[in-house]
Amino acid sequence: MAPAPADRAQSVVALGGGHGLHASLRALRRLVDEVVVDDLTAVVTVADNGGSSGRLRGEFGVLPPGDLRMALAALCGLDEWGGTWERVLQHRFAGEGEMNGHVVGNLLIVALWEQLGDHVQALDLVGRLLGSAGRVLPMALTPLDITAQVRGLDPADDDALTLVRGQVEVATTGGVITRVDLEPAAPRPCPEALQAVADADWVVLGPGSWFSSVIPHLLVPDLRHALVSTDARVVVVLNLEEQPGETGGFGPADHLAVLVEHAPELAVHTVLADTRIGAEERAHLLEVVEAAGARLVVADVASADGGPRHDPVKLAAAYESIVLGAGAPGDADLVARP
Amino acid sequence: MAPAPADRAQSVVALGGGHGLHASLRALRRLVDEVVVDDLTAVVTVADNGGSSGRLRGEFGVLPPGDLRMALAALCGLDEWGGTWERVLQHRFAGEGEMNGHVVGNLLIVALWEQLGDHVQALDLVGRLLGSAGRVLPMALTPLDITAQVRGLDPADDDALTLVRGQVEVATTGGVITRVDLEPAAPRPCPEALQAVADADWVVLGPGSWFSSVIPHLLVPDLRHALVSTDARVVVVLNLEEQPGETGGFGPADHLAVLVEHAPELAVHTVLADTRIGAEERAHLLEVVEAAGARLVVADVASADGGPRHDPVKLAAAYESIVLGAGAPGDADLVARP
Repeated sequence: MAPAPADRAQSVVALGGGHGLHASLRALRRLVDEVVVDDLTAVVTVADNGGSSGRLRGEFGVLPPGDLRMALAALCGLDEWGGTWERVLQHRFAGEGEMNGHVVGNLLIVALWEQLGDHVQALDLVGRLLGSAGRVLPMALTPLDITAQVRGLDPADDDALTLVRGQVEVATTGGVITRVDLEPAAPRPCPEALQAVADADWVVLGPGSWFSSVIPHLLVPDLRHALVSTDARVVVVLNLEEQPGETGGFGPADHLAVLVEHAPELAVHTVLADTRIGAEERAHLLEVVEAAGARLVVADVASADGGPRHDPVKLAAAYESIVLGAGAPGDADLVARP
Repeated sequence: MAPAPADRAQSVVALGGGHGLHASLRALRRLVDEVVVDDLTAVVTVADNGGSSGRLRGEFGVLPPGDLRMALAALCGLDEWGGTWERVLQHRFAGEGEMNGHVVGNLLIVALWEQLGDHVQALDLVGRLLGSAGRVLPMALTPLDITAQVRGLDPADDDALTLVRGQVEVATTGGVITRVDLEPAAPRPCPEALQAVADADWVVLGPGSWFSSVIPHLLVPDLRHALVSTDARVVVVLNLEEQPGETGGFGPADHLAVLVEHAPELAVHTVLADTRIGAEERAHLLEVVEAAGARLVVADVASADGGPRHDPVKLAAAYESIVLGAGAPGDADLVARP
């Protein structure tokens, strides 16, 4: 089937958390500026239990605000006002006292939740402050914990599975994660997030900490239902490298495979990998992509410094190609390897 | 001399701190709304050493932000946006953890100082966020301590003077304060505050904690110089009651007398007292007012609940009468006692 270019601006929902989602949103906001995308929503994990977020969650029993704050910062207005408030939102207190390590935006979001009593209204207000290019929503309205079944942690039995609990603990575990789950298993969903997924033209999943920020979206029952029943095309953006701890030893195909294992009924439309991928890995990945009924796009999307981060400008170009030249599953690579 | 009504909108600088300045600014912003005042600046004490401000000052060595934050809140826009951000700025964290008692606006101001490296630019930015009706400036750019000479604290000698140090300690001292000083004695002034005083049509001093929030403005050498050399008319707004601790036993005349003692060269134009004042007190006050070359205005400016706070609506009416019907020193009461 020939690519059918979009004849109107598209609506996009990006799901993830942390630095991966930040990079993805930085890219997508460029498409908003160019009116390729006219409706952008970030849906963000709420399972963090470390750092400033973990302390606030422990002290106030609220959703961990850090990933939400980072997503808001990624979407801030590009003028001086937006840039200044972005810096303030991201400001982390130093010193050696009780404030050490706390991030201003986290405190602001928690205060807004306490004042307004409404998660979404509060996040929308911070978005207005920043002149945000999109909306930021939590993936659930219940603070979550991630648990992982990990193989290789038991010195007496290499095959034994150990239960690891907590996002920080899962992200830094030593063994091999075989699956992740949420506690509670059926958290209260965010209705606006479900609606955004239902209404979207595109859903972007990843990049990011695979087991602790990307896959958790598929484990919130109502959100998973929205993702498998939406007409939106689902794009999976693979990480550039394994992440020591949670995805140690994982190649691109392994990333996709574990995601599919966690949600076999999800129809993936496009898988985006970086040109760094070797020929053998690429062949292996293509098999998994085709088995999933998706198409593979390989594009230069990595940061020029050789680090594990996506470059927002390159990622924006890849997203634009995908959105504007949306081919059907089974197409050959859309973007040629340089 | 007949009153000479102002034929153009006036510029006003209000000096003080805490709840007293908050009430005064709430009143003055009404005059901004009615275009009686077109330029409003608050100059705020920076000697607080207690509560959230004191903790932040101790942890980061910054100016105590609390009185500045409260002044900004007083000037916030009257629309939903301004009102919401005012509530957030004033939000105090509860709970039993490390954040307990901290106020969001204080944290935001400190973060902006750290990010921007400029006190005034940061306060202006918060003002823009709030849609503020005026500018808020610190009385000095050096964190200050107040010291007081207090009589009556030495059980062995009723007349002995004891040195009390710190705003909280001075505000809650048991004896009789004979004078206050600043440490350091010559803090770095805020140039924008000096300029605002020089350019003003009116300067309003008080109400507020007399020794710890009002008189300190007269003790910053450059600010005092600006106050005695400006062409602005100086209005002293007396407190409604004595304040147990720092002004225990003080009547209206005593308040004015100690202020004049701390800055004999200050030309006071108008002294504003409330109609609660008794006949004897009033006669005594009038003597002190006339000795200072000022005129006395007695108006109903107290909160209807009988508490020690000024009512912003009534205070606005009194300010408007003073500004619009500005008589010369020596005039009889401008506002009749009901």
